[in-house]
Amino acid sequence: MVSEPNSSVITCLINLPNEFGAKIMNVMLQLKKLGKEDPRRVIHSLKVAFAITLVSTFYYLKPLYDSFGSSAMWAVMTVVVVSEFSVGATLGKGLNRGLATFLAGVLGLGSYYMVHTISRGNTIIEPILLGIIIFLATAGATYIRFIPLMKARYDYGLVVFILTFCLVSVSSYRDHEIIDTAQDRVTTILVGGLISVLVNISLCPVWAGGDLHNLASKNIEKLGNFLEGFGDEYFGTLNARESNKSLMQGYKSVLNAKQVEDNLVNFARWEPCHGRFRFQYPWQQYQKIGNLSRQCAYRIDALNGFLNNFTKTPKEIKSKIQEPCIKMSIETGKALKQLSISIQKMVPPTSAETHIATSKIYATNLRSMIKTKLWEDTNLFEVVPVVTVASLLLDVVSSTEKLAESIQELSTLAKFKNKESKVAADDQKEVPQTCSDSSGPQHVIIIN
Amino acid sequence: MVSEPNSSVITCLINLPNEFGAKIMNVMLQLKKLGKEDPRRVIHSLKVAFAITLVSTFYYLKPLYDSFGSSAMWAVMTVVVVSEFSVGATLGKGLNRGLATFLAGVLGLGSYYMVHTISRGNTIIEPILLGIIIFLATAGATYIRFIPLMKARYDYGLVVFILTFCLVSVSSYRDHEIIDTAQDRVTTILVGGLISVLVNISLCPVWAGGDLHNLASKNIEKLGNFLEGFGDEYFGTLNARESNKSLMQGYKSVLNAKQVEDNLVNFARWEPCHGRFRFQYPWQQYQKIGNLSRQCAYRIDALNGFLNNFTKTPKEIKSKIQEPCIKMSIETGKALKQLSISIQKMVPPTSAETHIATSKIYATNLRSMIKTKLWEDTNLFEVVPVVTVASLLLDVVSSTEKLAESIQELSTLAKFKNKESKVAADDQKEVPQTCSDSSGPQHVIIIN
Repeated sequence: MVSEPNSSVITCLINLPNEFGAKIMNVMLQLKKLGKEDPRRVIHSLKVAFAITLVSTFYYLKPLYDSFGSSAMWAVMTVVVVSEFSVGATLGKGLNRGLATFLAGVLGLGSYYMVHTISRGNTIIEPILLGIIIFLATAGATYIRFIPLMKARYDYGLVVFILTFCLVSVSSYRDHEIIDTAQDRVTTILVGGLISVLVNISLCPVWAGGDLHNLASKNIEKLGNFLEGFGDEYFGTLNARESNKSLMQGYKSVLNAKQVEDNLVNFARWEPCHGRFRFQYPWQQYQKIGNLSRQCAYRIDALNGFLNNFTKTPKEIKSKIQEPCIKMSIETGKALKQLSISIQKMVPPTSAETHIATSKIYATNLRSMIKTKLWEDTNLFEVVPVVTVASLLLDVVSSTEKLAESIQELSTLAKFKNKESKVAADDQKEVPQTCSDSSGPQHVIIIN
Repeated sequence: MVSEPNSSVITCLINLPNEFGAKIMNVMLQLKKLGKEDPRRVIHSLKVAFAITLVSTFYYLKPLYDSFGSSAMWAVMTVVVVSEFSVGATLGKGLNRGLATFLAGVLGLGSYYMVHTISRGNTIIEPILLGIIIFLATAGATYIRFIPLMKARYDYGLVVFILTFCLVSVSSYRDHEIIDTAQDRVTTILVGGLISVLVNISLCPVWAGGDLHNLASKNIEKLGNFLEGFGDEYFGTLNARESNKSLMQGYKSVLNAKQVEDNLVNFARWEPCHGRFRFQYPWQQYQKIGNLSRQCAYRIDALNGFLNNFTKTPKEIKSKIQEPCIKMSIETGKALKQLSISIQKMVPPTSAETHIATSKIYATNLRSMIKTKLWEDTNLFEVVPVVTVASLLLDVVSSTEKLAESIQELSTLAKFKNKESKVAADDQKEVPQTCSDSSGPQHVIIIN
């Protein structure tokens, strides 16, 4: 007699392999997508596997095993823990681990010998004194981890310090050949660190600095994409294609890029000079540029709200300031894209200046138009959204100007050369004339 | 003969202790500030130190050392690495470490015995086969670390898996008592994990869930603080005190809170039910609330730009819509603060609804006022900033409504009880009448 619940259990069991298969398929597709998005991920996995397989020869080759014995374990551990995606992260972790191990080893041994001398080998006083020292050292080091600067750059070093200090000072209580053991460990940790750093740098290295540089440039380009498309999209002057819309929405990733940026800056600081980046390259300037990009992105997010606004403004009202708005938006977009290119190519942002100047002329025109009695016969309520959009666009123009200034600062600090700016400058369009009735504080100032 | 450079070197040497002293003083002050900001940091440091000192008794007490020997090291390592600030982070790391060690140990031993059987102890084939298996396993596990879900929750587990798998499979090649060693290690790791989890939970525990809950509530309160002060500040109706200004600027920390929030959600998911939070509490809803808070904060950042705007709008223009703007801002601020309180006290957000309804009535009034010919004799250009501010405020009102909806959702999911809402509702003010000429789609809808 097969009851109903039983049959449903059977159905469930029959479906189980299918569901499991679907899940596995899903994970596989995700893995494929990850590799397609950034093939360096696949290379990184192979690099780590290579470094670990290499370091495991410590066990297989008799002469190596004879000299290190089970201390070879520390080399394997170091490679596993230190191997990070970028050179900066790997170097940072490796140096943190190496220095912290050395320092903690010396201090741990020192404190053991001090306690041993004071207690004269008394088996009750010695562990109590050692316990007190360990308590104080670990409490202090754990507390220091809360200092933001330490957290950002030396957090891993502090953990390794606590670990090594405890291991060395407590093992010395039992293991009286501690100096030999310590020597072996330090050597294997150094070898492990060296292997992972060498493999990381010599096979298709991923530089955090380069990634940071590209991220800054890409983010500014995304803002530019939005602004280039915004005018036509808002005023409905073009049959905007769907593909354009998805390109415009790219700016959203800029809103939350701060953490990634901060991490990359921390990693980049550990990296030696490489490629186009010289020693002591001004990485921290990228944080300033990132903050200004986000300021601009917040305004763009507000503008984006107007694209999906269902309280449509009549076309005849929009059309009154349509021209300067679209042109200002396009010019600012172009300026941002030029800024992005100038970061990418490491040339001073001179070609962006022209676009900024042009967009400021349109801004002046726009202000003048708003001042005239263009609106006399219209309902102010219907004008509000358009005027808000115009005002936000004016805000974006000034954000872009600030951004250009900070990129100019980067250009000075990093000594960008002017080799390619002429080519970019050829890409300029005619500069419009300022309206004759413009007045007030809106002068056209070309930065620099 | 004392040359000038020498004397400057001497001056420098004399100043060195002073400079060093100043630096030390600076660090000390910073440490004091960190403790004052959050005294749980001091407690955490003492807790970690206590757990480590406790686990180091494995070395001091002869019976314990006799049974574990140098494997005691793994207990110390586990405590150092697993002890995190919050219970969720500690539990997450502990479980990751425990499960990954067990799984990797079993698989590592399994693959060693498989290789040993296949190669029949051949000293050339065996290490080559082992090397291939290690290469494949580590490359796979390293690649899986890139999957966002794995990165967020199981990253540490994957590192420990790689580490243990390599150590077990390679050491088995040399150490033929590997099963005993493995058993000792698993036991000590379990003991270490248990000690750190127990110390973490039993002495003044810091719950990531509680922190997340408070952060969500605090962030919404900060937005409320801005809006409560904004009206008076912008229209200059009060001699705003400096303290009020700094309170208003608190919203800035909301802009970049995403990473902290995401981390806390990940940690909170590891935590068992505690205090007011039941098992399977809807932590992910806090991410939704956080995103909506940030949407609101972006608009507030745009509003903040108008506070420092030097192109002053004449007072007589501002005064035309001053009243509804100030009241709308204050009511929205109050609504946000009520939402914050309803999260804090875990009661349904009914008391905020009244404030939202009131602010929507003011919004309707504001829209009607803008529609009338109030502006006839004014220069539109001077009106623009005021109208933009009004429009942004209207935007903030609708953001707040969405936020209230998502908090209502949280209230349903988390089954908030209505015990205290009556008290909060007493705090309401009179509701204004809607202007008679209001029309269009602006109905007063009270959510829920």
